[in-house]
Amino acid sequence: MLEVIFSILALLAIWYSFANFTNIKRIFIGRPMRTKELNAQHTKLFWMLALPILSADLYSSVAYGPEAGVTELIGLGPAAKWFILPITIASVVLLGILILSYIMGVIAYPGGGGAYAIAKDNFKRAWPSLIASSSLLVDYVLTVAVSVSAAVEAVSSAYPAVQPFETTLAMVVVLLLVLINLRGVAESAVIFAWPTFIFMACMVVLIATGLLDEVRHGFVQSTTPAFGTFPQGLTTLLILKAFSSACSALTGIETISNAVPIFREPKQKSAIKTYIALGVITAVTLLGFAYHLYVKGIAPDPKNTMLSQLAGGYFGHGGIYQIIIWSTFVVLILAANSTFTGFPQLSAIVAADGYLPRALTNRGDRLGYSNGILVLAALASILIISFRAQTNALIPLYAIGVFLSFTVAQIGLLRRWKRVKGPNWPLKFAINLAGSGLTAVVAIIFAFTKFVDGAWVVLIVLPLIITFSYIVKRHYTQVALELRIDPKETHPTRHRVISIVLVSGIHRVVNNTVTFANSLGTEVIAVYVGFDDESIAKMETKWNEWGSPCRLVTLKSSYRSILEPISRFIQTLERWEGGKPDHIHIIVPQFIPKKWWHNILHNQSALLLRAWLFRHKDVIITTVPYHLQK
Amino acid sequence: MLEVIFSILALLAIWYSFANFTNIKRIFIGRPMRTKELNAQHTKLFWMLALPILSADLYSSVAYGPEAGVTELIGLGPAAKWFILPITIASVVLLGILILSYIMGVIAYPGGGGAYAIAKDNFKRAWPSLIASSSLLVDYVLTVAVSVSAAVEAVSSAYPAVQPFETTLAMVVVLLLVLINLRGVAESAVIFAWPTFIFMACMVVLIATGLLDEVRHGFVQSTTPAFGTFPQGLTTLLILKAFSSACSALTGIETISNAVPIFREPKQKSAIKTYIALGVITAVTLLGFAYHLYVKGIAPDPKNTMLSQLAGGYFGHGGIYQIIIWSTFVVLILAANSTFTGFPQLSAIVAADGYLPRALTNRGDRLGYSNGILVLAALASILIISFRAQTNALIPLYAIGVFLSFTVAQIGLLRRWKRVKGPNWPLKFAINLAGSGLTAVVAIIFAFTKFVDGAWVVLIVLPLIITFSYIVKRHYTQVALELRIDPKETHPTRHRVISIVLVSGIHRVVNNTVTFANSLGTEVIAVYVGFDDESIAKMETKWNEWGSPCRLVTLKSSYRSILEPISRFIQTLERWEGGKPDHIHIIVPQFIPKKWWHNILHNQSALLLRAWLFRHKDVIITTVPYHLQK
Repeated sequence: MLEVIFSILALLAIWYSFANFTNIKRIFIGRPMRTKELNAQHTKLFWMLALPILSADLYSSVAYGPEAGVTELIGLGPAAKWFILPITIASVVLLGILILSYIMGVIAYPGGGGAYAIAKDNFKRAWPSLIASSSLLVDYVLTVAVSVSAAVEAVSSAYPAVQPFETTLAMVVVLLLVLINLRGVAESAVIFAWPTFIFMACMVVLIATGLLDEVRHGFVQSTTPAFGTFPQGLTTLLILKAFSSACSALTGIETISNAVPIFREPKQKSAIKTYIALGVITAVTLLGFAYHLYVKGIAPDPKNTMLSQLAGGYFGHGGIYQIIIWSTFVVLILAANSTFTGFPQLSAIVAADGYLPRALTNRGDRLGYSNGILVLAALASILIISFRAQTNALIPLYAIGVFLSFTVAQIGLLRRWKRVKGPNWPLKFAINLAGSGLTAVVAIIFAFTKFVDGAWVVLIVLPLIITFSYIVKRHYTQVALELRIDPKETHPTRHRVISIVLVSGIHRVVNNTVTFANSLGTEVIAVYVGFDDESIAKMETKWNEWGSPCRLVTLKSSYRSILEPISRFIQTLERWEGGKPDHIHIIVPQFIPKKWWHNILHNQSALLLRAWLFRHKDVIITTVPYHLQK
Repeated sequence: MLEVIFSILALLAIWYSFANFTNIKRIFIGRPMRTKELNAQHTKLFWMLALPILSADLYSSVAYGPEAGVTELIGLGPAAKWFILPITIASVVLLGILILSYIMGVIAYPGGGGAYAIAKDNFKRAWPSLIASSSLLVDYVLTVAVSVSAAVEAVSSAYPAVQPFETTLAMVVVLLLVLINLRGVAESAVIFAWPTFIFMACMVVLIATGLLDEVRHGFVQSTTPAFGTFPQGLTTLLILKAFSSACSALTGIETISNAVPIFREPKQKSAIKTYIALGVITAVTLLGFAYHLYVKGIAPDPKNTMLSQLAGGYFGHGGIYQIIIWSTFVVLILAANSTFTGFPQLSAIVAADGYLPRALTNRGDRLGYSNGILVLAALASILIISFRAQTNALIPLYAIGVFLSFTVAQIGLLRRWKRVKGPNWPLKFAINLAGSGLTAVVAIIFAFTKFVDGAWVVLIVLPLIITFSYIVKRHYTQVALELRIDPKETHPTRHRVISIVLVSGIHRVVNNTVTFANSLGTEVIAVYVGFDDESIAKMETKWNEWGSPCRLVTLKSSYRSILEPISRFIQTLERWEGGKPDHIHIIVPQFIPKKWWHNILHNQSALLLRAWLFRHKDVIITTVPYHLQK
């Protein structure tokens, strides 16, 4: 746990150093961009190019989905190996239904509508959209953690020497993703198409090689487990658990529906075509991959992914194997990267509605939502470190969120079809009805079967986020109400201000500060805090010798603290019979050293005083800097 | 290394939470104390009571000194076991000479004079006293680390289950010491006498039991190693190394000479009596302990201290053994605790002379030097964590510092005797001549034999601290020079001030801020930063509708940052042809939320702006707080 907290601190420290040492910032992040450059970013994409760009998240999941499924059954021994087939088939059927439902979403919201937008549009109350947004946000965090961990595992399967450094490597990847995304990358950059293309090609080659192998050596080989045997200890619960784990391969479907605006015209048709093509490719890959795993009787091994085992079996550890491993690595990182666009965008939209801290809507120098990027990275780092970059440990936390938001979005669509009707609405309604029913069932199965393994965490975290959202919204509403004035009624007036100058002796800094105070048109009182009578008497004499540039009040502190006597003096002024001033205005000097480390040489009691007074008193504070020459 | 940095951060965080949540602070630290309570603290002590109180540091070292010595020879096999005798005898001889030399110190400085004070008094240049102070400060840090680690090792020898948590336990002890010392304990509290008394009694019982055992079973037993054999591989270097490690038992001798003022009259005589008694007791204990270890042929075992082995052999693991282990634990912690008085006092004295940051001279609520306590705890924690609470690993870093400061102090005394003469001065001179020669030789042996084991660290750290001290002193001198004014020549005048109010719209906060600005007798300009032309035009209209309470300047920011346009505006004012103002005065509002976590809901750009402007511009900044009601 400590490590976790510390990693957050470290990330914050990194961010602060960026903020302060702007030259370093420029090198890594690049020149600041003008707000109007925002719209120039998106070049419209032909759908066949959009396909790989938008599919990294979904398609990359094939690298860990089936494996996550069979891992659940590993305890039953080799007789359970054949279950990879029915489990994968079931998840492919679910994939088909989800893609159909999402096509309905594209038809309904051609402007691009995530689950949050759909829910917001179709429910009066806020909570359905908050369920959608918070479960998606949680899920984005998990996507980064799972994808980065899986990417690192792919590499460490090929190079076991990497294994002890998995967590470190994963953290390095997250840091790089932060830098890349603070720098800003157009979601639609064509360069992102290539790794996914190559990975898809690798999968095609892998599956084709598998087929060839099976044509030559038979579809049932010596390694193929018996089909249809039911090993002892198999329960419905276990099968459901395996199924729900395998469904973690289905996350990322929403990406295309969010990105409709970046397609070339006709947008909707292009997006639908992309959805269908992606569905077919993913289904074929999943089924082919699962079938070959079945034929080769490959079992999960925490030190060697099933993909690596299969590829190693076909190609040895030569060039093709290397290409497969590294393209898996890159594509999984792209999946994480796409989340670095999704999370900040969604959190900015929710924050703009007042349900999350407003700082999430700030665009950074390079127009990305910097705070969202940093929050995502910090949370994902916590997960990666806590789970030591082990994918399987993270899977139970996964996918509930996706299926919850899927369900909310589809119920939203159901309400929409009922309201707006339109061509073929009963068919669309039916599709979303089936879809929402199925995703709801899967979400419940997930929550139920994975409860002990960690799903309970999500079931606690989600209500917390939703409650937090409501509290945030209420606070903003109350503040807005409190700050509102009627410009016709309320106008600035003139107040009586007493300015208090803190003096510590007679020297250049005090001279500066008193000069400033006397330049204001306010009543000025110099206050000196002494720790004994002697120093107070000395100060009074000196002040008179200096010509009493303003009235001097001396206070004695028995506790060596300047806070307590000043606080008492403020109280006296507040109850002053001669007429309480409207504002008490405290003027403090502050040393600004030439070198940053000189700060530790000056007590900077001014800073502490400011912090304390602000917390405890209603006073206005002016800091007069004194820039040290040396 | 990360853990190390993080532990410092954690300590800082703890301190800050103390500073902020004063109620918690009150519970742990207690009510604040008046400055005049300081002198009431010390009740004068009878020397027999002072003896145990002031001897924890020196006497507790018997628990690890001889062990540290023979550990160096462990590689030579059992034939080297007998070397525990000559090594211990040599360190006892050195102990005698050191105590004699320190008695000379007490005679010369009855007011209590540490090595720093003696060196300061007897050398014109600063560097000898800086050598003394920095080596003592380094040594105090090492004392905490070594004593706490040894205490924890004593417990984990008795309870092996504690072993995996040694570092954690050590950190808990350090934290407790911090709390106790922030709360403030009179160095002379009689309660501190008991553990040392009990520990001394335990040692007497242990040695007596050993003698009894030897009378009954013979002074040469079956386990006793052959005396006088020279095992293969024995070198002079190794013997010197063992000797210097054993000398780590001699640290802490300076405590009594620093504490002369707390003795009952006649102070000097009492202190000298205490020195002689302590010397005798320590010598007897060291020799007796070493002799029994020799007879029993006990070898060092990293999992079981030699003291624990010997006690276990005589008494089994019953009641007496438990008392010995726990009194060792308590006495070693008392040794660390005495350092928590020594380090802050010494660093405050050095800081008062301008050679360390002045913050070290601040007395906290309970009159302790809080900053010194925290710095000591942080540094000791770094050592404990880096060395995983292993005493032997820390010993090489130890004792160079002690012997260096011993040497400096005695050379100082030599110069004093030559200068002031006085009764019997040639004798005193001779004693200190012998003492300084011996301690110098030991320091050189230490530096030489332990160089590779870590002594080089100390030899790098010391010059760094001394250089730092010089730089600090120079900075303070320069600043003092820069700040000095002639009160007859320089007087506060009146300046022309332009006040800039940052406005973000028309609401209650802006109304407050503008009211304050208009209450000053300065020229007021309201500045609005807009991100597009539309919002700027809207603001200008609204401002006019509001009756233009002051002049409004609108600035456009293409980069969504308010810093850049404000910085440009300040530049314009600074070059203003109509006459550059003497001061530019910026007024910013700041939200003060009711609940601390509400801070994350408000962007607090005012704070960032302040920090940035202070670093980059010469402007005066006023913060007008707005206390949110909800």
